[in-house]
Amino acid sequence: MTKVLIIGAAGMIGQKLAEAICGEGKLGGRAVEALTLVDVVEPSKPAGRIGSVRTAAVDISVPEASEPLVTARPDVIFHLAAIVSGEAEADFEKGYRINLDGTRDLFEAIRREHAASGYTPRVVFASSIAVFGAPFAEVVPEDFAPTPLTSYGTQKAICELLLADYTRRGFLDGVGLRLPTICVRPGKPNKAASGFFSNILREPLAGQEAVLPVSDSVRHFFASPRSAIGFFLHAATLDTSRIGPRRNLNMPGLSATVRDELAALQTVGGDEALALVRREPDETIIRIVDGWAPDIEARRARELGFTVEDTFEEIVQAHVEDELGGRASMGGR
Amino acid sequence: MTKVLIIGAAGMIGQKLAEAICGEGKLGGRAVEALTLVDVVEPSKPAGRIGSVRTAAVDISVPEASEPLVTARPDVIFHLAAIVSGEAEADFEKGYRINLDGTRDLFEAIRREHAASGYTPRVVFASSIAVFGAPFAEVVPEDFAPTPLTSYGTQKAICELLLADYTRRGFLDGVGLRLPTICVRPGKPNKAASGFFSNILREPLAGQEAVLPVSDSVRHFFASPRSAIGFFLHAATLDTSRIGPRRNLNMPGLSATVRDELAALQTVGGDEALALVRREPDETIIRIVDGWAPDIEARRARELGFTVEDTFEEIVQAHVEDELGGRASMGGR
Repeated sequence: MTKVLIIGAAGMIGQKLAEAICGEGKLGGRAVEALTLVDVVEPSKPAGRIGSVRTAAVDISVPEASEPLVTARPDVIFHLAAIVSGEAEADFEKGYRINLDGTRDLFEAIRREHAASGYTPRVVFASSIAVFGAPFAEVVPEDFAPTPLTSYGTQKAICELLLADYTRRGFLDGVGLRLPTICVRPGKPNKAASGFFSNILREPLAGQEAVLPVSDSVRHFFASPRSAIGFFLHAATLDTSRIGPRRNLNMPGLSATVRDELAALQTVGGDEALALVRREPDETIIRIVDGWAPDIEARRARELGFTVEDTFEEIVQAHVEDELGGRASMGGR
Repeated sequence: MTKVLIIGAAGMIGQKLAEAICGEGKLGGRAVEALTLVDVVEPSKPAGRIGSVRTAAVDISVPEASEPLVTARPDVIFHLAAIVSGEAEADFEKGYRINLDGTRDLFEAIRREHAASGYTPRVVFASSIAVFGAPFAEVVPEDFAPTPLTSYGTQKAICELLLADYTRRGFLDGVGLRLPTICVRPGKPNKAASGFFSNILREPLAGQEAVLPVSDSVRHFFASPRSAIGFFLHAATLDTSRIGPRRNLNMPGLSATVRDELAALQTVGGDEALALVRREPDETIIRIVDGWAPDIEARRARELGFTVEDTFEEIVQAHVEDELGGRASMGGR
């Protein structure tokens, strides 16, 4: 029997992860007896097969807020709580308080419980390819140094180092996942610089216009929400003795251009969907996206069994199946 | 006129750095009007040409201890204060408190003074090749990921990330120096795993026996104390616009084997000195040293004007000149 905790369970990935675990009722073949979902706002409670599902509003940036979550001794802790890149850049102190100190407090609570009882949970940490900063080679190599160009990326890179050291010391059993840009993000268009990668697929598939602010040749690195959930579930039950001391892994992704996205949109949604994409260059977004990695080596993660889509058409199909009940509102096939 | 602060001024490098600045009375051609030397124990006051030299015992791990040092607005801050690898490994909390929190507190004090007055000092931070962890290629490449295998290396790698982010945000103007293993360390033999690299030169040159616990073929990466001081002085006055956003630099070093060391000992100290080296294999030290980098690329630092010895004979000669008044007590030339 397994007890599971998700910190950051109200976010897009956290919510889908909770739904997946509830729906299955199991994690890595073992029944989940209790699932605790927390976030700075109380997460919703998914339907499913788990007897005890508790939800609570917990602000991990408050010192010792993690303590009671840890003394309940969950076997697996998914830690996804963070403020996003733009907010961490706009509010320096808040970014460090939540994204760094909140994580360190969690790890310290685990270390104390470890000292008290030998507790050593699996901790799956959501990191990001934002730990990497330009200039890049065409493919960022497996062991490339994180030299982030945002405070968010810095905070994630620091937490990765802490995760590895706390693991090496035996306080916890950590796996850090450097997530590619998630596409297609469900929900409304947002102002994130990366938003258009999803907008130009999601909106036309729903019959809405979308703005493309960069050129068709822009290349970036993607995984679907479905794949991201797969990464977390796999990391939760993986035999970590196979990983070795480098516990932070580049997740596999699909390296693709905007042109590839549009071709997939046309295949799935037809010419009508494609016609809803309006080109409107935005110099600010062009400059930001220019600093992002076009492709990232993920040999180690693939060897460890992490998988991802091979084509953009699969990514779009995953969106149609998971978010649109299997049917795009536009034509196509 | 320049005001200089050295934090960690009682250590071997800090003391030599203070002596060099006092002896010269200048830094990068500009007169130094005031030099402040602090460490957890009060540093000694070197003789020299600077009017105002102040010394004080300051424990940077005490919250806000850095504040008064920073509000005095030194133009250049050398930050070398840290507990060493063995101690940080033995005392987890102390290592994080001094090596991480002490540094972050310093950077935060600078950020507050920056907000108050626009203050943006040059900060030269002593990092270490301990940020790298095995397995390695034969030469660790320039942009290799820090994946430390000690808490000390983790703390240094985290401080590097903070230094880069605080620099990027404009709060300070930082340069991080990843120092090679310093050889020949003056003073008494110590129990550090790396101690023998210096012991097998220093002791025989002083007519004393020394123990060699590893094989002659062991290769590692070195710089003399003289070169290390040169790194700090150069970093203090370098045009940092030439560095770009990757502010933490692999310092150049000499990749050499124990065999190279012994050959240099024989050249400088004669057969009599060489005969004082006693081989006594130590499995623990063999295993530890096996995890250290044999060679590290430092192309960027060399392009920026950082220099180091080309042969082990130069390293030994630097020791004889700087520590032994120009004469080894043993024969040789």
